[in-house]
Amino acid sequence: MPALTTYKTPILADWVDYNGHLRDAFYLLIFSYATDAFMDRLGLDSSNREASGNSLFTLECHLNYLHEVKLGEEVEVRTQIVGHDRKRVHLYHSLYKPGSDDALAANEQMLLHVDLAGPRSAPFSETVLNTLLALAEDQKDLPKPVWIGRVIALPA
Amino acid sequence: MPALTTYKTPILADWVDYNGHLRDAFYLLIFSYATDAFMDRLGLDSSNREASGNSLFTLECHLNYLHEVKLGEEVEVRTQIVGHDRKRVHLYHSLYKPGSDDALAANEQMLLHVDLAGPRSAPFSETVLNTLLALAEDQKDLPKPVWIGRVIALPA
Repeated sequence: MPALTTYKTPILADWVDYNGHLRDAFYLLIFSYATDAFMDRLGLDSSNREASGNSLFTLECHLNYLHEVKLGEEVEVRTQIVGHDRKRVHLYHSLYKPGSDDALAANEQMLLHVDLAGPRSAPFSETVLNTLLALAEDQKDLPKPVWIGRVIALPA
Repeated sequence: MPALTTYKTPILADWVDYNGHLRDAFYLLIFSYATDAFMDRLGLDSSNREASGNSLFTLECHLNYLHEVKLGEEVEVRTQIVGHDRKRVHLYHSLYKPGSDDALAANEQMLLHVDLAGPRSAPFSETVLNTLLALAEDQKDLPKPVWIGRVIALPA
């Protein structure tokens, strides 16, 4: 099974700079929408959030910008589960033109499951954890993501 | 001399989620505007970009989300030069409420100076490099940023 395709969109006019290129922050907005879609897969969609009072918060993320993307181009996000524990999930999103395997950008995210009443960190429910385990099992033969575990530094 | 205050804004309605909290991608939009303001300081503002055909591209960035920020709250970005070479600059932005020293979020960015005609990487002009050196010299006694050089990983 390949990485999940979690989000598809054309590049919108609000997201580009004076040159018609996607601005750095809007790559992350696309990846953020992909995380929302991933939450839906886990049963943490908005109706469930209201019922359960739980959500996922972004703790930390890292982005690599690999190619420019222009106004109107179609893109999609593919998502791989890197790891998880009882209350955290580590995701790897990458951005592509549909049908291409040449990544336009990559984004690593660490997400924390939160009880909104605190807000405070909280373990996943058994149902959500089982869904997460099943998705991770489906992806166990995927190659390790390329743009992961990186430290930002000037070249030596 | 303290870190440069490069950008100030209230949190806008377009930037918040269903709970009225700033969405992860819009923290980066605020930091992206701070980079634009930093470019202005270097003489790489939009009028100069048109004249020189040069700009800064984001290669890579890392964000840490430390506190929630709500609709309407005023925030400011303080910017520190971590390092640079002939064509790259490594910046550290952090987000605060005005008058507070408790960071709400932190963002490390690696930026590349680009000749837009290629586009291809290009050394800074002597004027821009001298401005960068003078700003870095002004900041030489600032403490090392806290949220820097990080690798994303689950706790051991």
